[in-house]
Amino acid sequence: MGKMIEQPRVELSKVAVSETHGENSPYFAGWKAYDENPYDELTNSSGVIQMGLAENQVSFDLLEKYLEEHPEASTWGSGFRENALFQDYHGLKSFRTAMASFMEQIRGGRAKFDPDRVVLTAGATAANELLTFILANPGDALLVPTPYYPGFDRDLRWRTGVNIVPIHCDSSNNFQITPQALEAAYNEAEANNTKVRGVLITNPSNPLGATVQRSILEYLLDFVTEKNIHLVSDEIYSGSVFSSSEFVSVAEILEARQYKEAERVHIVYSLSKDLGLPGFRVGTIYSYNDSVVTTARRMSSFTLISSQTQHLLACMLSDKKFTENYIGTNRERLRKRYQMIIEGLRSVGIECLKGNAGLFCWMNLSPLLEKANREGELELWNAFLHEVKLNISPGSSCRCSEPGWFRVCFANMSEHTLEVALERIRNFMGRINKE
Amino acid sequence: MGKMIEQPRVELSKVAVSETHGENSPYFAGWKAYDENPYDELTNSSGVIQMGLAENQVSFDLLEKYLEEHPEASTWGSGFRENALFQDYHGLKSFRTAMASFMEQIRGGRAKFDPDRVVLTAGATAANELLTFILANPGDALLVPTPYYPGFDRDLRWRTGVNIVPIHCDSSNNFQITPQALEAAYNEAEANNTKVRGVLITNPSNPLGATVQRSILEYLLDFVTEKNIHLVSDEIYSGSVFSSSEFVSVAEILEARQYKEAERVHIVYSLSKDLGLPGFRVGTIYSYNDSVVTTARRMSSFTLISSQTQHLLACMLSDKKFTENYIGTNRERLRKRYQMIIEGLRSVGIECLKGNAGLFCWMNLSPLLEKANREGELELWNAFLHEVKLNISPGSSCRCSEPGWFRVCFANMSEHTLEVALERIRNFMGRINKE
Repeated sequence: MGKMIEQPRVELSKVAVSETHGENSPYFAGWKAYDENPYDELTNSSGVIQMGLAENQVSFDLLEKYLEEHPEASTWGSGFRENALFQDYHGLKSFRTAMASFMEQIRGGRAKFDPDRVVLTAGATAANELLTFILANPGDALLVPTPYYPGFDRDLRWRTGVNIVPIHCDSSNNFQITPQALEAAYNEAEANNTKVRGVLITNPSNPLGATVQRSILEYLLDFVTEKNIHLVSDEIYSGSVFSSSEFVSVAEILEARQYKEAERVHIVYSLSKDLGLPGFRVGTIYSYNDSVVTTARRMSSFTLISSQTQHLLACMLSDKKFTENYIGTNRERLRKRYQMIIEGLRSVGIECLKGNAGLFCWMNLSPLLEKANREGELELWNAFLHEVKLNISPGSSCRCSEPGWFRVCFANMSEHTLEVALERIRNFMGRINKE
Repeated sequence: MGKMIEQPRVELSKVAVSETHGENSPYFAGWKAYDENPYDELTNSSGVIQMGLAENQVSFDLLEKYLEEHPEASTWGSGFRENALFQDYHGLKSFRTAMASFMEQIRGGRAKFDPDRVVLTAGATAANELLTFILANPGDALLVPTPYYPGFDRDLRWRTGVNIVPIHCDSSNNFQITPQALEAAYNEAEANNTKVRGVLITNPSNPLGATVQRSILEYLLDFVTEKNIHLVSDEIYSGSVFSSSEFVSVAEILEARQYKEAERVHIVYSLSKDLGLPGFRVGTIYSYNDSVVTTARRMSSFTLISSQTQHLLACMLSDKKFTENYIGTNRERLRKRYQMIIEGLRSVGIECLKGNAGLFCWMNLSPLLEKANREGELELWNAFLHEVKLNISPGSSCRCSEPGWFRVCFANMSEHTLEVALERIRNFMGRINKE
């Protein structure tokens, strides 16, 4: 194609993703191994089982039943023109109202959400990027507790030019954030002359599969107030807590504090996990800050949700009978899956962090490491991929500072497949113990 | 809500939009006047008629008929799970194939499009921003011929930090780009130590409603080659050319040149205008540059199209009988509308630029200006809004360097409403001529 031309950010952007998602990353290698040899109960029973994918397939039957009983959600009647033309960045009022109400239901009614503060985005990926664009300038930093979702290295940094400074957490206190770790991260940034603009947490945590304690949320709010910075709480797994009462949203803390300092708090939500609809690209920013709401709404022009999809989900989520049954049944099914994997692992001597939410568990294989470092972790990960034929996620891809931890997803497969995976682990542990 | 907290880009972004879309802009005032008093044939016959909105409503009946005859496009059969989970940033293969084929059909088969070069984005807004992110660094510039789509001041600049340097065109040669104007813009940027990364054109032009001549495209390609920069051709109105033969896509020029220097050319397309579906958020980047395709695809994570909508449009656009009839009928209807408005205006002594495409005409009211400057133009615009009760777009909002030109949309209303609008202009001209 002729001589090379100047491509400013093309090369730059390759670098940004290469660390976590590039061709030399475990992420890439794991997907490749799975794609080349995917497990299938009938046709490829010795193939790789994908346990690196945080997808929720356990409650699809409920969605399918709803769609079957409510054809009007998928079609328009006489409303096609209006719907096809609807590109207002406020989004469909009916949909924003249904989203706010769904967020309240998930939190057991312990927090209120105002539809006028719901900013719609094409997925949580876009919501997190958009908030970073608004809250920080290039070169500034957000503090993020480790281990964290590997995609943040792309979503928060890539196009914004913002840095992530890790808040190092470890197993000594179940990877919960401590005041010391928070201060250390803040001071590290200051020492590098990097302006800290906020703290971003996931609650429930991905990859830990556990909720953040109320006392830590209280401390975080005091901390961001003292430093005059922001708090972003990514709560995309809030509907996947096994028991509603075990989850405290930052929204509840704000309500208890009568919304004092609320203007520095922003919540991210999505329907990709709790409803299992990642393809529909539905995310939201819920901000208590008027300027952030206004700016985010304008910037959402770059990442709007199809009005066809807004229409479908407005119907579905405003059906209270459906949502109540869905939320309860989905929680129960996830809890059952979680028990199944935890008990299966425990029976072969593998312990996991005590979890109460999400589509994965945080598995401790550090006793199996030959070398207690990143290299040893990746060797073990490699054995899991090529010998046990399970694609799991090494903690180092989540910037975990302690080697030997792995994220294992359990909701993107059938119960039978999960049993097969557990059987493979059992055999592997048997071989290891013999050696 | 307590003391102000630091909000880096919140304030900055207000500034960026205020010039063209802010609360003091004609854009904002025009919409406000329309929203407060919208024309309705039956209930508000003296209300404001919205002629500032480039929406295509003339062929909706064809889409509605298709959906009625093809319910499978709006539902899934047994494919719901797969569709709901599909979030691959490559997009549905069936949809990319249908898009490539539709782009070929629109160009009368005179250019080929490879589905593997189709990058999907949530609208052309996102496509233009994404290309700017990739091709330029903050502080760099793109050259854009004036008058241009006011949204570019937001889309190309806001989050990217890239500048627009105008290529000034004027009525002496029907606002076509000249080598002199192009060189002058380039030299202006160089003189300001601004690195020029590319030229961005709209073809057919918004707001001119006219296609770009082949000789100018040839010159532009030579120019970007000589300067070692990029050419972005936004062709979102390519299916709205009244006669297919009057449109030359840069894709055709590349084909004739056997794709020499093609790696510096990128086409933007969308279904918002030609198919009248802005709510569905379907845009695309078609790049001949492998690195740009790869990077754009990865960055499209921030702006994916709902898989539900991809499914519907894959069905619709792969139905050749439907697309052939739609493209032909839609062109014919737009031409008829255009003739109607042009002849109506001519009969009262108003001339427009000779157009052959789009959903608007470029109207010359310079003979009516009391002051031959921007102020005079806005006074006349104000009279149209508040006396004639028509919301049209002043050329100055498109950075036009000559006062007295206005963009008038004609496809977002019924024929009857267009007649009412023309009658109002006739009366206005009558009053003026008496004075």
